[in-house]
Amino acid sequence: MNAFMQIAIDEARHGMEQDHGGPFGAVIVKVGKVVSSAHNEVLISNDPTAHAEILAIRQASAILGRFDLSDCEIYTSSQPCPMCLAAIYWARITTVYYGSDKDDVAAVGFDDSLFYSYIKGELQDPGMELINLERKDSLELLMEWMEKSDKQMY
Amino acid sequence: MNAFMQIAIDEARHGMEQDHGGPFGAVIVKVGKVVSSAHNEVLISNDPTAHAEILAIRQASAILGRFDLSDCEIYTSSQPCPMCLAAIYWARITTVYYGSDKDDVAAVGFDDSLFYSYIKGELQDPGMELINLERKDSLELLMEWMEKSDKQMY
Repeated sequence: MNAFMQIAIDEARHGMEQDHGGPFGAVIVKVGKVVSSAHNEVLISNDPTAHAEILAIRQASAILGRFDLSDCEIYTSSQPCPMCLAAIYWARITTVYYGSDKDDVAAVGFDDSLFYSYIKGELQDPGMELINLERKDSLELLMEWMEKSDKQMY
Repeated sequence: MNAFMQIAIDEARHGMEQDHGGPFGAVIVKVGKVVSSAHNEVLISNDPTAHAEILAIRQASAILGRFDLSDCEIYTSSQPCPMCLAAIYWARITTVYYGSDKDDVAAVGFDDSLFYSYIKGELQDPGMELINLERKDSLELLMEWMEKSDKQMY
């Protein structure tokens, strides 16, 4: 048994037993050492973004003092949902180890497939409406960013 | 000018001027009233997940005491990135008003298109490797969840 995946699964089980959220855990590893570990806390924190991977990334960033985790890997008990996968992408983590896959997760009631279909443009009715508004004023803001001489790109 | 979009843009400008992060702001609105507003804090917090929409959702959930924000709408100065769009989906917000679009945002250096292409399976080299590991142990965990009699589904 992979030691890091064991920690991710133990985290998940602990969170589930404590009724913190769904049965999901994640671990951030840097050069063979655990930086952070977390479990889903959607229920206990009333935060729909409190997935294990998001919390583990936020903790690792706080511990390492940087948003770039490109020297880290993530171990997660289940295949990341699209939100977490994008968060992993923004954190610049390039290796993701996962236990159960998204079909396994869907089978126990956590289904990301609708959102994946939405991103792929496969849904007739995505159940979410995106409405463009005041683009001109928002573009002015982006131009100010472009012209900001001391901006830090990331 | 839409009053809520104005708040989102003002938030974005404030965050940019304070060097908190990129020029992005978001507002959560419930029945015509602002519940929360936030701006990108990736730089100031060293948190790659601290996008305006994520922070606004987290604040609104904390204020309302629930992860289900289906009675809310979100106004965001720029089209949400995939992470934020998925977070909006998990928060069950079904109406998204956005200012500049993803092409406008890409033009000033914040490009989500690679990730969108990845989700669509269009990339030969996604720059991210997903590796399956210890599925059996993770499946056991999911079975425990299935059998948990007092679980709260969400």
